[in-house]
Amino acid sequence: MTSPVSDHQEMPEARIALRSSWLQKHFFFSLFVLLKKKNKQTGEPEQPEMVPNKKNVVLVDGVILNGPTTDPKAGEKFVEEACRLIMEEVILKAPDVTEKVCEWQPPEQLKQLLDLEMRDTGEPHQRLLKLCQDVIRYSVKTNHPRFFNQLYAGMDYYSLVARFITEALNPSVYTYEVSPVFLLVEEAVLKKMIEFIGWKEGDGIFNPGGSVSNMYAMNLARYKYCPEIKEKGLSGLPRLVLFTSAESHYSMKKAASFLGIGTQNVYFVETDSRGKMIPEELEKQVQRARKEGAAPFLVGATSGTTVLGAFDPLDEIADICARYGLWFHVDASWGGSALMSRKHRKLLHGIHRADSVAWNPHKMLMAGIQCCALLVKDSSDLLKRCYSANASYLFQQDKFYDVSYDTGDKSIQCSRRPDAFKFWMTWKALGTLGLEERVNRAIALARYLAEEITKREGFRLLLEPEFANVCFWFIPPSLRTMEEGPEFWAKLNLVAPAIKERMMKKGSMMLGYQPHQGKVNFFRQVVISPQVSREDMDFLLDEIDLLGRDM
Amino acid sequence: MTSPVSDHQEMPEARIALRSSWLQKHFFFSLFVLLKKKNKQTGEPEQPEMVPNKKNVVLVDGVILNGPTTDPKAGEKFVEEACRLIMEEVILKAPDVTEKVCEWQPPEQLKQLLDLEMRDTGEPHQRLLKLCQDVIRYSVKTNHPRFFNQLYAGMDYYSLVARFITEALNPSVYTYEVSPVFLLVEEAVLKKMIEFIGWKEGDGIFNPGGSVSNMYAMNLARYKYCPEIKEKGLSGLPRLVLFTSAESHYSMKKAASFLGIGTQNVYFVETDSRGKMIPEELEKQVQRARKEGAAPFLVGATSGTTVLGAFDPLDEIADICARYGLWFHVDASWGGSALMSRKHRKLLHGIHRADSVAWNPHKMLMAGIQCCALLVKDSSDLLKRCYSANASYLFQQDKFYDVSYDTGDKSIQCSRRPDAFKFWMTWKALGTLGLEERVNRAIALARYLAEEITKREGFRLLLEPEFANVCFWFIPPSLRTMEEGPEFWAKLNLVAPAIKERMMKKGSMMLGYQPHQGKVNFFRQVVISPQVSREDMDFLLDEIDLLGRDM
Repeated sequence: MTSPVSDHQEMPEARIALRSSWLQKHFFFSLFVLLKKKNKQTGEPEQPEMVPNKKNVVLVDGVILNGPTTDPKAGEKFVEEACRLIMEEVILKAPDVTEKVCEWQPPEQLKQLLDLEMRDTGEPHQRLLKLCQDVIRYSVKTNHPRFFNQLYAGMDYYSLVARFITEALNPSVYTYEVSPVFLLVEEAVLKKMIEFIGWKEGDGIFNPGGSVSNMYAMNLARYKYCPEIKEKGLSGLPRLVLFTSAESHYSMKKAASFLGIGTQNVYFVETDSRGKMIPEELEKQVQRARKEGAAPFLVGATSGTTVLGAFDPLDEIADICARYGLWFHVDASWGGSALMSRKHRKLLHGIHRADSVAWNPHKMLMAGIQCCALLVKDSSDLLKRCYSANASYLFQQDKFYDVSYDTGDKSIQCSRRPDAFKFWMTWKALGTLGLEERVNRAIALARYLAEEITKREGFRLLLEPEFANVCFWFIPPSLRTMEEGPEFWAKLNLVAPAIKERMMKKGSMMLGYQPHQGKVNFFRQVVISPQVSREDMDFLLDEIDLLGRDM
Repeated sequence: MTSPVSDHQEMPEARIALRSSWLQKHFFFSLFVLLKKKNKQTGEPEQPEMVPNKKNVVLVDGVILNGPTTDPKAGEKFVEEACRLIMEEVILKAPDVTEKVCEWQPPEQLKQLLDLEMRDTGEPHQRLLKLCQDVIRYSVKTNHPRFFNQLYAGMDYYSLVARFITEALNPSVYTYEVSPVFLLVEEAVLKKMIEFIGWKEGDGIFNPGGSVSNMYAMNLARYKYCPEIKEKGLSGLPRLVLFTSAESHYSMKKAASFLGIGTQNVYFVETDSRGKMIPEELEKQVQRARKEGAAPFLVGATSGTTVLGAFDPLDEIADICARYGLWFHVDASWGGSALMSRKHRKLLHGIHRADSVAWNPHKMLMAGIQCCALLVKDSSDLLKRCYSANASYLFQQDKFYDVSYDTGDKSIQCSRRPDAFKFWMTWKALGTLGLEERVNRAIALARYLAEEITKREGFRLLLEPEFANVCFWFIPPSLRTMEEGPEFWAKLNLVAPAIKERMMKKGSMMLGYQPHQGKVNFFRQVVISPQVSREDMDFLLDEIDLLGRDM
């Protein structure tokens, strides 16, 4: 097979012809001899021999149909060997601080090192295991204690087991008949999350990401505002406008674009110096939209912004939403986990007044990517009314069980992964108190790091953290005596990328940086307990100092 | 902790106070003694002891910050034991035909049998293993050879290994620095899929489901039609209209609703008796939309409809799209895999003329849920232009490597799973020829089953299959002599649900049914090779006959 598609013609079937030429003369059913033996007691057919012989072989279109074609023994052995490799190379080795976080290779070199090409014929198991080893070797170890690059990190053994079970069972969560356990687990987890938000009742759905949760919320709010949009669309309607802070996640803009609302109709509200939405500014923007003749319908507050880790003042925003009749959505994808902590849940004070909440247990609670819930206060089946399409092949109404458990029609997806299950397993293993401890420890570690930063020469905190984001500059020796004018900032802007390059090539740690709201490149440290400790915080600062001391 | 949220107050911290009371008197940094030992050669700090002692313990907010809090030994042992359980109960046992496909329990009973409640304190490992066992026990075994209920089935050992690796590494695919291997793998797989579609070049993105692929396509088509919509939204624009067949997947309607286009603006095109879109009817609908002053922008053809497995005539539809300047999308979520077969790719004749294609290797090619690609012919960075939001914390432009590999901004998601990887692993293992063989075998098995149905008393085929869906009625003895009037059809409508109930309770197999386009409930058999054989097809018919012989 050279190019299978160059001329869109059917190719000659040399392979099949070659392999089954002795069968070909009997072509197409003529060889078919059905030797079905009936079990005398039950009348059910017994399982016939798996290896076809001349007598009962069934051939259709040149394909032998007797017996399965997989070799379970070889397959199982392969899975076992691969599991051993995963256990050694990822689960045991990667969390070791003496190992590298990543074995950096630039794209073009990595392509040379990996055998990416898919060929006509398959590879033997030993070769595949070598491929697995290479994939692991050159992948970033997000469970390494010095991986601080994103809003997730570490390895939770319990969610990992749940994820292995999921992959082995390969379920899709839409109907009770296909996913009985996973649907009940999702129901139980949603109920508990709703309880922690502080609603008496509610609804929700796990979905593939906080960005998608925000889309769900925006669409639900729009549906609530005007249910006709589901059928008629936005054409001819007044311009819908939504409000969110300048520090909110970029998915709010993506959602507005995707849903046909338009990014210009996302009105960004000014924040204070800590990155929190200013309620008075919100009210001004709502009034502005009204004056323009637009239709304000949604406020998207953020609990735990991506860069600064800021929490909007939910209670005051709720007052404004109530006053103007706006849907109140809280993007707590990152900060929602603080709800598990009696000490820190005050960061989300007022969240019980929200109409919808996005909350990702895959971040601080380590449930594994992805584990994201959109939760809705409404309990009048809004999700279902907004999303249902009543596919007759899936959501038959004449089933023999209570079809209210067939919750798939609440989703924009058809196949859907059982993401609630991995969070459930961790919750079962640790209990609420264990989850609380993780949150408390992450925030305590962040406070420790911030304190250290203020003590060390050459480090400068952008702002006191209230959550697990610690934002800071490293000012290298050559800049420490310079006046803080344009040249200083221009030079400082180059420092974080340069240090990042050095740490990546060394493989000692991974830490994010960004310019943000007029501030030049600074580091953002994200702390996910429990695999990290005070020692890792110290290491982080020592290492930056080491990598940047000649700058 | 009883109800953590009932009054939204911070709760007393009895637990922390109890556990660390001796530490409390030194409260908050006062105990902090930093004993950092420097390695004399490198200047890097050595890893200090993991167990804190009185001398160097660091306490913040009542939390000890020394050393990680996880117990890796216990965690690893738990993972090992769970892996053994998965190997035995799912990988080895479930494919055995003497085992049940499902251990049916109605929702309320299953709730009683499972311990779903999440409590304040965690459970010990032995208890958790028991929970895992229960989850497996009551879950449907989609890798059982008699699971025919959905458009996926079976177990592919290679994709399974890739999925285990994915879960252990827990990556998110957005930037090269975080997912170097998985981004390159995705690029390689997309390139190969594009080749099989027959495009010279193209672009694409793996995403969570065919439904989402269809949304992507619809939004891209809209963006191409009028790029301003990204910023300005649909308000004030003429009514956008799209066309798809009456047999298309329900996600086309969901997408139209979600994107603000409106379900009424999905114009359904009549199909022929085989479920294929009639091109002349499409043209009529386009002309109707034009006459109405609406703005037609997209035709969504289907290659492999969900129920009947029908393939729309792509070449003729492409002509109409060209004539009227419409985006040509092909939903080949199910049927796309036929492209792997030189014998059967003619079913998708003309697909190279499509602007976008949805193709799910998690269906017939068994890559594991979910593995879905949206492929786009355009190579002018349309995906990026349509979707990018340029988040500065993720897609920094001053990185030290070629940032064109940071492909995350082409997505509507932020975190994204490396779904291409599992398909890549299977492709590496089997080669193109092995994948082709699976497709050929599935279609041959479907033909065999159809042939058998025509031979057996009481079975009636709805239509000759051209793919792997076999739709048929079972007419029980009491109806075989009845005149085929309204009473006959009303009674026949009850047969499939009743047999389904019996097979579920017995656990012998799972098979879907539905009413469809005016036809009363019929069975839909879906064949995914290679775990099934001719014997399973025979069993299916014998079993239906057995379950329905008293009806």
